[in-house]
Amino acid sequence: MINTETLLLQPHNGVLHITLNRPQSRNAMSLQMVNELRAVLADVACDDQVRALVLSGAGGHFSAGGDVKDMSSAGSLEALRDLNRIFGTLLQEVEALPQVVIVVLQGAVLGGGFGLACVSDIALADHQAQFGLPETGLGLLPAQIAPFVVKRIGLTQARRLALTAARFDGIEAQRLGLVHFVEHDAQGLAERLDEVLGQVLRCAPGANARTKALLLGSVGQPLGPVLDQAAQWFAEAVAGEEGIEGTQAFVQKRKPRWAG
Amino acid sequence: MINTETLLLQPHNGVLHITLNRPQSRNAMSLQMVNELRAVLADVACDDQVRALVLSGAGGHFSAGGDVKDMSSAGSLEALRDLNRIFGTLLQEVEALPQVVIVVLQGAVLGGGFGLACVSDIALADHQAQFGLPETGLGLLPAQIAPFVVKRIGLTQARRLALTAARFDGIEAQRLGLVHFVEHDAQGLAERLDEVLGQVLRCAPGANARTKALLLGSVGQPLGPVLDQAAQWFAEAVAGEEGIEGTQAFVQKRKPRWAG
Amino acid sequence: MINTETLLLQPHNGVLHITLNRPQSRNAMSLQMVNELRAVLADVACDDQVRALVLSGAGGHFSAGGDVKDMSSAGSLEALRDLNRIFGTLLQEVEALPQVVIVVLQGAVLGGGFGLACVSDIALADHQAQFGLPETGLGLLPAQIAPFVVKRIGLTQARRLALTAARFDGIEAQRLGLVHFVEHDAQGLAERLDEVLGQVLRCAPGANARTKALLLGSVGQPLGPVLDQAAQWFAEAVAGEEGIEGTQAFVQKRKPRWAG
Repeated sequence: MINTETLLLQPHNGVLHITLNRPQSRNAMSLQMVNELRAVLADVACDDQVRALVLSGAGGHFSAGGDVKDMSSAGSLEALRDLNRIFGTLLQEVEALPQVVIVVLQGAVLGGGFGLACVSDIALADHQAQFGLPETGLGLLPAQIAPFVVKRIGLTQARRLALTAARFDGIEAQRLGLVHFVEHDAQGLAERLDEVLGQVLRCAPGANARTKALLLGSVGQPLGPVLDQAAQWFAEAVAGEEGIEGTQAFVQKRKPRWAG
Repeated sequence: MINTETLLLQPHNGVLHITLNRPQSRNAMSLQMVNELRAVLADVACDDQVRALVLSGAGGHFSAGGDVKDMSSAGSLEALRDLNRIFGTLLQEVEALPQVVIVVLQGAVLGGGFGLACVSDIALADHQAQFGLPETGLGLLPAQIAPFVVKRIGLTQARRLALTAARFDGIEAQRLGLVHFVEHDAQGLAERLDEVLGQVLRCAPGANARTKALLLGSVGQPLGPVLDQAAQWFAEAVAGEEGIEGTQAFVQKRKPRWAG
Repeated sequence: MINTETLLLQPHNGVLHITLNRPQSRNAMSLQMVNELRAVLADVACDDQVRALVLSGAGGHFSAGGDVKDMSSAGSLEALRDLNRIFGTLLQEVEALPQVVIVVLQGAVLGGGFGLACVSDIALADHQAQFGLPETGLGLLPAQIAPFVVKRIGLTQARRLALTAARFDGIEAQRLGLVHFVEHDAQGLAERLDEVLGQVLRCAPGANARTKALLLGSVGQPLGPVLDQAAQWFAEAVAGEEGIEGTQAFVQKRKPRWAG
């Protein structure tokens, strides 16, 4: 396991729990945190023992966004541009991860934290979590985040949120389709997370990875080739180890092997 | 009318009611059913007497998905691939039908049945209908269905449903934007269907067909050419039989001819 | 300021209030009104004193749609086509406006009025407003409007509304994601508008304009180049006047200059 300063890593039962761990700054995503997250993801992407990732924040907040200190020390226009762009690369890498990515959102979910929530497969939020895109109020842009917000909740809602820098809570986040579940306290979140992880672990890891690739790869692509690819993968799944085990388990009314 | 074994066909007042009719297997979509549906659709597409299609299932279920028997007898990887792909072709053909397609969803709406619901123009569901994508739990993929689910309810919801194989009911289906109406029993569904058919039949058939083509053809396409095409069709409609009749009927405060 | 016959223009505190002013025909959008709106927009687009646009209708209605009189006097197929297409151009121009566009929707929001609502950044509706796409009931097509409706509320909802010519109210409009806020009377709308304008004016005008361009420009585009452009604009914003002022104001716990 990689050594990290800004992240707590806890592997448990096929699930890697990652805690953003800079509570003194509400887990603002420093360049160091971004780099550590990217290194962990690169590792996880090739590790078929890991079936899901759970991202949360230490100290009652998910993440308050980018770290202003890095920005002020960046100096040149080029350095600022690269610093910003690398956060987009992180979001692209989280999105492309073959494993299921779950986020647990409490407290501040702002700017970059909001962006990270937008690339999760499953999002759980506390009803009092504070979501928002504060950038334009500071004379800045929700730059790397904007396209992921549009993809997550659609242009109609994204434009209002970004152009008013509005704050909203977990209940509204569910109404907007940003999160899938909203709970009333830490225990509710923990129970929901257990339930969701249980569901994920009953799905075959290989089938889930290809299904995720198929879903993400279908957006904005011509339908015919997507369906051709899907048919090929379907046939491979039926004839493959997981398909054989899954169908047999179904007939024998037992759990498939991967469901432990 | 085509002779079918797996479908009941009842034309009535400009509407073709199609009942998936293999209740012993919860209307699982066998290859035969897929082929019969495709033959009926090819016929209907050229029949301007048919203005709407209503798809439902016999025996209290819409459809439990693909038929496992066809799959196990497919044999080669190529045969499995083709068997899978042909279901996607069916979904493409339902989607492209010039007439309005309405689905009435009760009981199991799983896998392929879920996919069929996703290409309807108007979907009615019983509040206790059981929706779900169970494939990944069996080591398989919701292969041909996945892109249509994304198109129907968006990536954010589709990924959670597919990667957890979650089940959900009609009320949740409406909340997710998968269905337009949810009713509490068979009578409620029948009344809603009457209302919706009444609305559809008050719209001009040719105008509806071109509007449907325009809506579907606008997705992911550059706006300029879409608007140019729309303007051409608009002008043809105004100068055409339906446009003249519709405008006159409006001025004369009477129903247009097509509204019978 | 441009001289207009069909529009009332009231600039106030950085906001241009435009009232569609043909109450005798429920603000049906005549060719003259379309032309006047386009002229005003061309003017506003280059005027950095204007930070937001508020569009509403006189006499209790937003707009009942296109003006039938222009249509009947158009004569040739080409003239009809051009008359229709120019409305699409208006919608494209409203959508592309660098400033924040807010619509206040009361009474009839039909056809072209519905289309105009679909290109706003923020939409407020009275709960009794009457939304609908009546065209197909008249043998016509919601031609220029259709792609904007799909973009606004998605294909699933758009197809039902267009193919049934259904009417619905403000509450349903919010449920469909067409409008952001629904209020119970004129005073509620006025208070909400004040609140929204207050939020918009606290955001930096240049940052808002680029954020809007970024959001709209991300739809259907490859992610990589969008993120590259975003990073460049982010860097320019940080190093620019607004970014410096915004960050200083934040540190000094005061309002930035533009929030006056």
